[in-house]
This record gives sequence, C-alpha cells and structure tokens, in this order.
Amino acid sequence: MRYVYAFEEGNGSDRRRLGGKGAGLAEMSRIGLPVPPGFTITTEACIAYQKLKRMPDGLMEEVWDHLRRLEAKLDRRLGDSAKPLLVSVRSGAPISMPGMMDTVLNLGLNRETVEGLAALTQNRRFALDSYRRFIQMFANVVMHMEHRRFEEILEQVKSAAGVTLDTELKDTDLAVVIEQYQALVQESTGRNFPEDPQEQLEMAIQAVFDSWNNPRAQVYRRVNKIADDLGTAVNVQSMVFGNMGDTSATGVLFTRNPNTGDPGIYGEYLTNAQGEDVVAGIRTPKDIQAMASEMPKTYEALVHVANLLETHYRDMQDIEFTVEQEKLYVLQTRAGKRTARAAVRIAVDLVRSGVISEKEAILRQDPEQVQRLLYRQIDPQADYELLAKGLPASPGAASGRVVFNADEAEARGKAGEAVILVRPETTPDDIHGIVAAQGVLTSRGGMTSHAAIVARGMGKPAVTGCEAVKISLEGQWFMVGDRTIAKDTLITLDGGTGQVMLGEVPTVEPELSLEFTELLTWADRYQKLRVLANADTPEDAAKARQFGAVGVGLCRTEHMFMGQDRLPVVQEMILAERLDERDRALAKLLPMQEEDFYGILKAMDGYPVTIRLLDPPLHEFLPDIEETQRALEEARARGDVTQAEHEEMVLRRTRALFEFNPMLGFRGVRLGIVYPEIYAMQARAIFQAQARLLAEGLHPDVQVMIPLVGIPAELARMKAMVAEVNQRVAEERGRALPYKLGTMIEVPRAALVAQEIARDAEFFSFGTNDLTQTTFGYSRDDAEAKFLPVYLAEKLLPDNPFVVLDRQGVGRLIRLAVEEGRAANPWLKVGICGEHGGDPASIAFCHEIGMDYVSCSPYRVPVARLAAAQAALRE
Amino acid sequence: MRYVYAFEEGNGSDRRRLGGKGAGLAEMSRIGLPVPPGFTITTEACIAYQKLKRMPDGLMEEVWDHLRRLEAKLDRRLGDSAKPLLVSVRSGAPISMPGMMDTVLNLGLNRETVEGLAALTQNRRFALDSYRRFIQMFANVVMHMEHRRFEEILEQVKSAAGVTLDTELKDTDLAVVIEQYQALVQESTGRNFPEDPQEQLEMAIQAVFDSWNNPRAQVYRRVNKIADDLGTAVNVQSMVFGNMGDTSATGVLFTRNPNTGDPGIYGEYLTNAQGEDVVAGIRTPKDIQAMASEMPKTYEALVHVANLLETHYRDMQDIEFTVEQEKLYVLQTRAGKRTARAAVRIAVDLVRSGVISEKEAILRQDPEQVQRLLYRQIDPQADYELLAKGLPASPGAASGRVVFNADEAEARGKAGEAVILVRPETTPDDIHGIVAAQGVLTSRGGMTSHAAIVARGMGKPAVTGCEAVKISLEGQWFMVGDRTIAKDTLITLDGGTGQVMLGEVPTVEPELSLEFTELLTWADRYQKLRVLANADTPEDAAKARQFGAVGVGLCRTEHMFMGQDRLPVVQEMILAERLDERDRALAKLLPMQEEDFYGILKAMDGYPVTIRLLDPPLHEFLPDIEETQRALEEARARGDVTQAEHEEMVLRRTRALFEFNPMLGFRGVRLGIVYPEIYAMQARAIFQAQARLLAEGLHPDVQVMIPLVGIPAELARMKAMVAEVNQRVAEERGRALPYKLGTMIEVPRAALVAQEIARDAEFFSFGTNDLTQTTFGYSRDDAEAKFLPVYLAEKLLPDNPFVVLDRQGVGRLIRLAVEEGRAANPWLKVGICGEHGGDPASIAFCHEIGMDYVSCSPYRVPVARLAAAQAALRE
Repeated sequence: MRYVYAFEEGNGSDRRRLGGKGAGLAEMSRIGLPVPPGFTITTEACIAYQKLKRMPDGLMEEVWDHLRRLEAKLDRRLGDSAKPLLVSVRSGAPISMPGMMDTVLNLGLNRETVEGLAALTQNRRFALDSYRRFIQMFANVVMHMEHRRFEEILEQVKSAAGVTLDTELKDTDLAVVIEQYQALVQESTGRNFPEDPQEQLEMAIQAVFDSWNNPRAQVYRRVNKIADDLGTAVNVQSMVFGNMGDTSATGVLFTRNPNTGDPGIYGEYLTNAQGEDVVAGIRTPKDIQAMASEMPKTYEALVHVANLLETHYRDMQDIEFTVEQEKLYVLQTRAGKRTARAAVRIAVDLVRSGVISEKEAILRQDPEQVQRLLYRQIDPQADYELLAKGLPASPGAASGRVVFNADEAEARGKAGEAVILVRPETTPDDIHGIVAAQGVLTSRGGMTSHAAIVARGMGKPAVTGCEAVKISLEGQWFMVGDRTIAKDTLITLDGGTGQVMLGEVPTVEPELSLEFTELLTWADRYQKLRVLANADTPEDAAKARQFGAVGVGLCRTEHMFMGQDRLPVVQEMILAERLDERDRALAKLLPMQEEDFYGILKAMDGYPVTIRLLDPPLHEFLPDIEETQRALEEARARGDVTQAEHEEMVLRRTRALFEFNPMLGFRGVRLGIVYPEIYAMQARAIFQAQARLLAEGLHPDVQVMIPLVGIPAELARMKAMVAEVNQRVAEERGRALPYKLGTMIEVPRAALVAQEIARDAEFFSFGTNDLTQTTFGYSRDDAEAKFLPVYLAEKLLPDNPFVVLDRQGVGRLIRLAVEEGRAANPWLKVGICGEHGGDPASIAFCHEIGMDYVSCSPYRVPVARLAAAQAALRE
Repeated sequence: MRYVYAFEEGNGSDRRRLGGKGAGLAEMSRIGLPVPPGFTITTEACIAYQKLKRMPDGLMEEVWDHLRRLEAKLDRRLGDSAKPLLVSVRSGAPISMPGMMDTVLNLGLNRETVEGLAALTQNRRFALDSYRRFIQMFANVVMHMEHRRFEEILEQVKSAAGVTLDTELKDTDLAVVIEQYQALVQESTGRNFPEDPQEQLEMAIQAVFDSWNNPRAQVYRRVNKIADDLGTAVNVQSMVFGNMGDTSATGVLFTRNPNTGDPGIYGEYLTNAQGEDVVAGIRTPKDIQAMASEMPKTYEALVHVANLLETHYRDMQDIEFTVEQEKLYVLQTRAGKRTARAAVRIAVDLVRSGVISEKEAILRQDPEQVQRLLYRQIDPQADYELLAKGLPASPGAASGRVVFNADEAEARGKAGEAVILVRPETTPDDIHGIVAAQGVLTSRGGMTSHAAIVARGMGKPAVTGCEAVKISLEGQWFMVGDRTIAKDTLITLDGGTGQVMLGEVPTVEPELSLEFTELLTWADRYQKLRVLANADTPEDAAKARQFGAVGVGLCRTEHMFMGQDRLPVVQEMILAERLDERDRALAKLLPMQEEDFYGILKAMDGYPVTIRLLDPPLHEFLPDIEETQRALEEARARGDVTQAEHEEMVLRRTRALFEFNPMLGFRGVRLGIVYPEIYAMQARAIFQAQARLLAEGLHPDVQVMIPLVGIPAELARMKAMVAEVNQRVAEERGRALPYKLGTMIEVPRAALVAQEIARDAEFFSFGTNDLTQTTFGYSRDDAEAKFLPVYLAEKLLPDNPFVVLDRQGVGRLIRLAVEEGRAANPWLKVGICGEHGGDPASIAFCHEIGMDYVSCSPYRVPVARLAAAQAALRE
C-alpha cells in the first residue's frame, strides 16, 4: 500500500484518500497552476495509525523519499542553514471540518535555519518572528503545552521593552523571547525543543493524525453525522513568503464580485506581507485592481489563474494567493460565498458563457436565499439599536412613526406620511389602518393572527406576538423594558426576522433583476408543478402575474368581507335572526362581491382563478363582546333605548355564536350547509362577474372551491346548489357559464374518504395549514406561543410543521388522498394552497407525489417556481 | 305453476312465496293449532298480475277450487243464505309493511247472506252492522270511494235517530244506512254494489294485488330499502265470531308477563265480543285468569296453545284469539314486545327450561334497552309537567329543590336534603356542590361540558345546555318562557332524555336482577373483548367492579386535581413562575395524589388500572379572567396592595395561558414535555402507592398512560422519565415496582405513525372522543351546539359521530394504527377508552378489528359486556 502522493501525482477527485484539501492541491497542480509543491499523506495512513497506535511500517520512508524529491525540485533542503526548506503540515479530511484539527506552519526552523531564512529574506526580524511563532505553535499542537504560558513570556518582554504591539518588538527582543520559549519547553517537558527538522516533521504528522480524535473533532463529527473511521490526510507543503520585499505580496480574490455578481476579479492584497497580516488588519489592504499597475505581470498571471480556476471548477472561486518575489502561488481555492443577488447573476452569466447548463444554474440556487431578493431588507451595512424581537409574521422591512390607532394611521398614511400601526392585536376594524401603514407591530397574536394574515396578504412587513412591547393605548406609548417609546417615534420593523429597531434604519430595495427573470424562465421549462398564487384582490393578482404565477390557487372571499364598507353589511347579515333579514343583507353584498370577482378574474384573465366560498366562523366578523358590553352600558347611561336594544341584540347574537374552539367550529362548508343562502349569493356574484367578462370578450377561468369538506355529502349538496345558481344566471344572461368545482382537503377525514369525495370534485386543493393543525391536534397560534419553541429547541420535531410540511404524518394523509382520489377520478387536478405551497422542501414533496400545482403568496411565487424546477431536476 | 296453497299445505318457512302472514298461518296450521281455515295466493301470482296487468291464467280456477274445499271443511258456503261462509282477504308481503296495503273483512255478505248471518248469530243488529262495515270497507278499498262520504251518511242517520254513538243505532237504523250506502255506490260508480260473493272475492284479490303499488307502499319500500319486485301474497281466511253469545269471546294474551317477564300467561279478553270491541275500549276487558273459572275448558286450550306456540317459536308470544261458541281459534301470533327487564328475565328462563341456548339469549337483548335498567328512571306511568328540554348529558332521574350555588347545595345536601344545583355552567369550584346535589341543570355547555363530564363520572343525572332556562343568580330564580321558578321549587331532571319537569315526578329504581347478572355471566364466556371501566375514584372503581369491569381502562388524574382541597395547591403550582415555586407546590400535591392512586388501585386490586397522566390545559384549573379582574378592582378599591399584587399576578399568568383553541392547545404530553416535573410527581405518587399496596400483600396492576402523543419522541422521552422515577422509588422502597406504559392514540398523526410509537408502547388506548374531534375537525361542544343537529336532521351524517364511532373516517385511522402498531410490536395491547367504549355499534367495530378491550363509564359496563358478547357471537 502506498501512503504518500506528491500533489502532481494525486487524483483530484479522490477526496476519500487525499482529503478535500489534498485533492484540491492535486487538482490545481495537475492543471498547471502555480501551487507551492508538496505531498499528501493519505487518510489510509491515518486509519492505519489509529489501528496500530503507531506510525505504520514504511510510512516515514515514503515521507523522506517525497521530501527529498521536494528538496530537489525547490533547490532547498530541510535543515539546510543556507537554503532552508520550510513546510506547513496541515490536516485535510475527506469532509471539511473547518478548524477542528491541527496545523503547523514554518516547520523546519531551528537555531541554524532561522539564520538562513534571515539571510534569504534579508529580514532578520521576520525570520526570528517566524521562529518564535513556530515554537509556540509546535509546542501547543504537538507537545500539548498551553498557549497562555507563551503569551505571558511575550507580554513580559514587551513590557520590558516598553512597547504594546508585537510588531514593535525588535529582533533582539525576539531573540530573548525565543530563548525564554525554549527554556519553558525544557522546563515543562523535560526535553529540549526539537532542533532536528526531520524529527519536527514526524512529530507534526503524528500530531495531525492524533488530532482526528481530539474531543472537539469527535463532537463535530457526531453533530454533523460524519463517520469516525474516515481519518484525515496530512498535507506537507513548502512554505512561500509574501513578505520578501516589495515584489512579494499576499491576498484574497473572488473571480467575480460576490455582492453583485458582476464579472471581473474582485479582492484585495498587501505588498510585503503574510496572510496573517491581512487578517490582523494592521495595514489596510489595497484593491486588487491596484495590482494591475503595481505588478502588471503578476496581475496578468492572477487574472489567468482566476479564469482557469473558475472554468475548471465551473463556479465563482474564492482564491488565496501569495506572490513571492514576483512569483505567484495559489494556496487555496474554493467556491466563493455570495449574496442571493450575486448567486443569480453569476449562474446566469456562467450559462451565457457556456460554462454551466441551465439546469445547473437552477440547481445551484438556494430558494430561501433567493426569497430575500423579493422583500425590502435592512441594509446589511447598517448599524441600529434593537428594541425588541417578536414573531417574523410577514417579511420585509419598513420604517415609520408609531401610531396607536387605525383611523389615525389611515389619515396620516393617506397624507403621505410613513407610519407603523402598533396595536395589542388587530381586528377587522383595523384593516383601513393596516392598508395605510408601512407595517404592523402587535404585542399579541401568532403567525396566523389577524395582523399576520392581513399583512402577508398585502405583502407588508409585520411583527406579531412581540410580548416585550407593553402598550398603553390610553397613554399612547409603549414600553420595552424600562424604556418608553412615545407616539410619533420613528421605528423600523424587519418582518423577516421579527426585529423592532429604533429610528429609521436604511433599507435596500428588492429587485427582480433581468438575470433573475431569465433564470426563472429557464426554471419554468423544467417544472412539472405549475405555480399559482394565493390572491384576494386584483392588486394581489396583478402582483402574482408579475412574479410569474399562472393562476390564482386560493382567493379567500372573507378578506373581501372585511373591507370597511362591507363589514357593517356583513354584520347585518350575520346578526339577522330571520331568513328575510339575512336575504336583505345578502342582496346588498351581492353587487360588492360581484365587483370583487370581476376585478380578480380580469387581472388573471385567461388563467384559472380558484375562489373559495366563505370559510371563517361568522363571529370573526362581529365586534368584540367586551366592546359591545361597554357600548351597551354607555347607551344605557345615555338613556338611548334604541341603541341599547341594538347592542343587546348584538350581544345576544355574538354570545350565541361564541365558540370554545373556533378552529374546529362552525365554519367552511358547515356555513354553506346551514345557511345555503350565503354560498348561493357568492356563487351568483361569481357567475354574474363571469358573464360580464365574457360579454367584454375576456376569458375568465372560474374555479369554485368549497372549504372544509369532511363528508362526501357536503360536497355533493354544495355542488348541486352551485350548479343550480349557475344554471339560473346562465339563463338570465343568455350564455353558458362554464366553471369547475372542487374542494379543499383540510381535515383528516377528507383525506380518508377522498375516494368518495373525488367523485364530485374536479380538483382537490390541500389546505395544509388546517390539515397540519388537525392532524397534529395543534392550534397553530397556541402551539407556536406555548410549546412548539420547546419542541424545536429540544429536537422533538425537526422543523416547524407549519413551515415545512410534515411528510410522515400530514404527508401520508395527502399521499393517500391523492392516490385514492385519482383512482376514483383520473381527471382530478391536485394542488396545495397552504403556506407550505411556498416552502421549497414542501414543494419537493408535492412534486414527488405528482401534484399538478402549488399555490402560494405572490411574493413567494418566484421561489416556488425555482423550487418546483429543482424538484423536477433532482428526480 | 301453482298459485294457491291451503294453510295446511303451505311451508311455514317460505315467506318469500307465502308472505309473512301466510307463512305464519301455514306454520300454525301445520303444528295443529286451531287456525280458522283458509288459503294463501302466492306472491308469484301478484308478480304475474303486475306484469300482465290482469289476473294470470288459471289463478281464479285455483281459487274456486280451494274455496270449494274450504266450504266443504266448514260446512258453510260463500253466498249461502242459510250457512253463509264469510272470509277476510288480507295482504301479506314477504317483508312486513304494516298498514301499507289493503284488507277486506266480512267478505261474502249481501242482502241474502246477511239474513243467514243474523239467524246464525241470533243477532240481527250485529249482522247488519257487519254488512254496513263490509260495504264501506269494500267500496273504499276495492272501488276507491272516499270514506268520508260513508261517514256522512252514518252521521245523518245517527242525527235523525237522535243518538251520538254508532253502537246506539238500532238494527232498523242500520238497515237505512245500508240502503243509503248502496244508493251512494250506485250513484258514484254507475253500478250496483256487487251482490255476488264470488265477484266480491275476485275484486278483493285484485285490489290487494293493486295495493302493492299504491303510493304509500312505494314510499315505504323506498325508505326501508325493500325491493319493488317482491309482490304481496293474499290470504283468504274464513271469518270466526267471538260475539256469538256467552260461549264466545275474543282476546289477546302474552305467553309471559311482558312487563316483568314472570312466567304464566298474561292478557285480557271480552265475552261475546269482536276484536274491534277490545280496541274500542267500550267494555272493560277481563283478566285472562278469569277465564279459568268462566270457560275452564277454553282456558285450558288457551294455555296449551300458548305453551305450544312459545315452544314452537322459542320466544314469548303475543297471541290474538277468538272463541266461537267454545271453540278456540288462533288468529295471529308474533314475538311479544316487552320491557328490558322482561326481556332479560324471559331469555334467562327460556335458557333454563332448555328452549333456547345461552347464545340466543344474549343475542336477543337490545343493549340500548338493557342500558335503561341501570339508571333511575321516571316512572312510565307518571304524569308530569314538562318545563324545558336540554341535552341529555348524564342519564338517570332525580328530584330536588332548586339551589343556585355550590356552597348552599353542599350545606343542604349534607344535611340530607335533596337539591338540584342549577347554574349557567359549572366550574371546578362547583364540584363540592355537585357531589352533594341529586343532579345538575345548566343553561350553557354541551355533552362534554364540565357539568356533563363530572356528573357522568359520578353517575348523577345532568341536563346541560338547557337554553330555555334563563337564570338570574342575583334574583335566585330562573325563567322558562314567561314562567318564573324560584329557589327551593321542587323539580325533577331526566338526564337520559334531557327533560326538566316541575315537582317531584315518581321514579323507579334501577336493578341488576339475578337474571341479568346470570345473563352477563354467560356473555362473559363468549366475549373476546375484555370490558374495563373509566373510573377516577375508588367509589367509581368499586361500582365498576360491581358491574363486572375487569379493570380500569382510563383513570383521569385531572378530576382529582379539581377537588376543593386540591384546587388551591394546583393553582399555586400553575401560577408558579419559577421552577422552585412549582416544585414546592408539587411536593404538597404528591401525598394527595398518592392517596388517590392508593385508593383506586386497592379498589381494583388484582386488575389493571390505567392511569392517564395530566391531560387538560392548565388554564382549566385557573379562575375565570373576569372574576380575577373583579377581585383585582375590589382589592384596589380596598387599598389592599398585597392582594392586588396577587390578583395582578394571577391575571398575568391566566392571560399568558389563554388559548384560542384549548382543544388543540397546550395539554396532554405537551405539558409533560414542557413541565416534566408535573408528570414526574404523578409517576412518583403512583409508584409510592404501588409500593405501599405491595407491602400490604395486595396486587396492584399499574398501567401508566401518556396522553395526546403525536410524535414518537414524545413517548420515548416520557417513557425514560417514568422509568427513572420508577427506578428511584423502587430503590427507596427496596422492592421492584413492575408496571406497563402505553399511550393514548387521539390525534390523527398518532395513528399515522403508530408503527413507530408502538416500539415504545406496551398498549394503545384509542381516545375516540378527541380522535373524532380532530379527524372531523369538529369541536364537540361547538358542533353539537351549532351545526351537528342540522347534519343529523338532513342525514348528512347517519349518526352523531361522538356517539357512534365513524367507521369510514375515524375507524379507518384506528384500523391502520392497530395493524401497523401490532406489526411493529406483536405484544401490543389495544383498547378504546372514549365514550364510544360503551356504544354497542362501536363495540362491534372494536371486536371486528381485533382490539383487546373496551373501557367505558361504570354504568355502561353491563351493556358493553353484552355488546362484546353479541359482536363475538355474530361473527
């Protein structure tokens, strides 16, 4: 068995044996890049070492053999006092374990070679400093001595010399440090610091092998599920020096701008310096472009290397380099970290220049990162004062003045002022204030609270459940800790992180760049899932179209009911105690709903619009019981008998509609069964809007969706009712009004009897929010406020099931419903319209089980398009 | 094909061709009973008639042939003026369709034969009346004339005669009636009323055939899913007369007492009367025993017939008979209706006398009817004034004086007075009042409200959600409609029907008779399911043992927390904001819980006791928010700073624990995960109680049950925690404390991942109440108050899924969990502990899918034992 490979001998794809770093060095050497020569000791040597508890036979012979070849190549020799060879000894495991294992630099220095280095570099101070560092590092890594004791010596010498910085020490001071270091080693270990560079090398190799099993590496492997028997390779590489005068330098470059993705190398360097100096920040590095004039030849070589590496690795690279007396060395290359914006730009540019394929460009994107491109964001450069943190209820960033009531928010917002509406929680009565505000902050309520849903629907930032914020509505202030924030104070919300910041924090604009648009166009070619949007208004629908949605998968009619002009009529309808009263209120709502549907169908002309009939429990539209009680008492106090009677009636009806568990209550199709006149009005409004659009020559594609079905007969009955209304409107308008009718699958029973339900449905839309709630037996608001954080922290659940679809439980029900539904009705279309419709992992699941579409918030449509394409390409 | 069979020729089991009545007459004739002779025209004749739209060839020839044989046998002839034969013509379908089709009696009468009948019976009035009735019935059934027009004539004649009752008409009056009837027929139909008895017979047979397709018979068949092509048979039977003097009689008898089941014939008769007279109630019938002296020979014959029929049909019979001049005729026999008590007694007696087998005795019981034996019931003979009707929340009947608060109920109840606690709803604070009251009435709350659950647990009657009752706690009265019921008024509740009655209505004691006990002992031999009970207290456990439960399948620890002495400590524990405070409160609860478990394990010694760790959300134990707010304001007004601070703390904590959907909130194992110290205290209390009992030489069988698991890791973690506590207590007490640990399956996800959960569970107990709620997405309280009544009324659901287990949805999940759970763990025990555990149809399902046990309220244990045996026997 062979244990050692020179870099140029290694196989660049054999990470298993050479480790990641060794394979990279081999690869770079193989393609002719100027890599400081050296060799790699394989992971197999390490494994053998671990088994034998000693160096395996023949290993060191191979090392000496490669060392001699290295010396010959460089015309330097380990331990030579005139032309000393110095090497680094680094670990390099098959799977990257950054910082977990040990490294020794400048190996080969001793009392003699340090003088040779001084002569060679014409810098005695540098040579002594290197030696001092080597002793310290070697003693720590190989001889297991504490860093602290060496630092103490250094401090004492600095103090004696009257200086504060290491760099202020003169060579004579450093000589003292070295003496004392060596005495310390002698004293602590009972032996001299090894002078023999060969001994140093063998000890260093062994130390790297040992570091495979140091406690922090063991923990890292356990946490990251890396096998314990992989072992690490050891790379022995000749040292190069960027600090050998003005023709030497060291630096870092990206092959493209990592912030913007713009082409052209990007980076910085320091002349006459070593890597550590760049990190230490003692001198300000120069822009890499400066090198073009300062060292034109080297710059040219660098550009060449950058192009070579990028083309070779087919991705933007982050390269470490050193120039030693005009000679360029590449020390490391790896895929460069980049912003979402750059990631898109680079991928698209690489496709354009034929380096990668469209598919690769798509697969390289991280959908969650891409998502950030679509909201205003806090400028990453900005400093700010954090006030509090709540739930990240609706992404985006916004600044404005604190306002505590909706009417004021509306007035000032309409007048052009930026305001943030701050409320304990919001109700339908606050909608006009939310519309006019830049963002919403509530101290109560979860991710599905009224404020959260409404803000997400509007694409406005919201932070909810921010319990640290104690609001005094009377006082018109809120407190955070012992700090009082008065009305009109400027604050900034980041609804993507839940942060509340003081003052106006700079933000950056979202953008759908040309490259992003192009990437998404490619994505659309590979998707099997169509991406639709959840949109309740013509504006949402237009936004969804702009982001590439091919229809509306969920249009919630209840949000239309909450408009300020509608709410009183809706309340009149709900408070009606007789059918004729209710019919009268419904007649008033009909033209309003018709306008709603007209607008949204028009905005999505030619694409399907899936309209869900009324879903929430009716009491959601009614005023608060306590408020009504107060109003009643006031009316009584005033002696206003009529008003008091009205308030009494409202109170009675509100109490009658009270529910212990509204989530599991009188809502969805249950309303349609008990009050068919409400659904009939909505169906009529839809078909009347459709008739008008058809008359205008447009192409409305109407899909009527019945929510919360759990019993096949519920759907059958609603289907018949809708068909009857359709028939009547069609006769009145003298034209056929084709439509499709389907249902949401959002209670477990619906999935369990899907086969029967599918006989009356043209489509199934999985309402995964509710299906997750009922399958787990979780009320989302309560769970997220009470126990889910503990469950996530303690890993009882891998993810929040309201964010990432639970494949094992909820997913099993969905899979079953899709299979059995299609068995009963092969033409059944199947999709998802919960919040999971915008989550990449959940989209992958939808793809795997063969759904036809996903529907998500307009702002997540681009991500969903990308994720859908990725799921298809990964298959 | 042969169409007609004399009764004595027919095959008594051939209901398909002879119809039910024809087969019965054939059977009775065959075994030699004195049945008035006659013959049956088969259903095939009817089917042929329907196809041909005319009498099939040869049918009437067969009829005349049988008629001649009948005349010969009886020495009477149809149409003979001296010895006229009269017959009845009745329908008789293969499946009983009571009252749907037509019948003609006294056929054969005309102007001549009526005189023969008068002579024969020596009763001209009777003969004329029979003729009058025959004309009316024949004209209506065969000639389709309206009854009304005949009644008008009768009225006119009565009026002219100056009498009000039909029976007051003299024979001369009746002759006038007959004249006018015949004139009416002539006038309406343009033909004479048929004088020829053969023509009458043919027309009557045809009319019965036609009646198979009359509208009401068609509807009845559709509703009852009876095939339209069965056809009806026609029975032509000679008439006999119980009104031919003092040696004639008519009556009804049961072969045993239908109320008590006591042996010996039971019934009544009228001398010189016809069956109609018994029904009309003009004369008071005599007890059948009177016949022993009045007509000793006939009585003997009757007893003989009764024994013969009971033995033949192997069940208690309800027999109609007529005595014509000392000769006994049996007109009809059928299984007699009986009370639950009689049903049990009769079945057991029949087994004892070797007539039926134990299995048949078991299968003949209706479990729902048997259930009624176990609660005090309103005396069925009692008259009462109904005040209102609420939900039948806890069965049983009780009377007492109205009391509006728990303290008063306790004081007066303890003093021996019978009181009914009347509240808008009850809370844990009212428990001591419920304990001391005879029953509970609430105006709010459903079948699972606090009052309902607590009362059911105590086996006390409760009526909940009685919205008609408007309570004024200040005024100490309630109103129903415009009636005011003051405090101290006597009322009676029937918790089995939901009725609230004024005054003290007599009730009857429940009993577990010797026969019932014996029947249940037999049932236990055939069951495959074991029957356990849900019991929270030693008293419940003792009651359950008495009713034959072989263990406790569900012991809810939260009801123990609600005791008046516990609640303050429980609240202290919940209000604790720091772990040490909570630990201090838990330390106080520990000895109390230990006593609870000691008591219940002792009462069930040797049988498994399944103890469920704390399940309900903590806020259920806290005072009402509004009450606390009031207390806070009062404390402030008093200037009591300490109290105000305390109330503020309570308010803060109560608000923090508030939930939107408590059913889906922070409860069950979620409490155990977040506050493991609570479950640890309960586990310790259990094992300490176990150790004491073992030390006393008893045999506690401990089963620890973790509620609401949905994630396998939840159970794994709780299992480890319980094992640790067990280990510690075992070490402290120096003895092994063996136990089993399992979980409830009550959210859909638990069923979906049952395979994984089963690895850590020794038993599964399906909590079908919650599983039904989550599978349907129904909150029981809300659904039953809002939309379920509509769903049931409109047949969207066949049954209330909270009463009868939903096989299609919930049942599918259960089946899946049982199969996959057992696949992973073949030793897994599986049972059910929701309310369905006491429902016969649900028990049958549990049996079918191979569960090991059901657990139900102690009061339903006998029913469950019976239902379990029936399910096994029906297999």
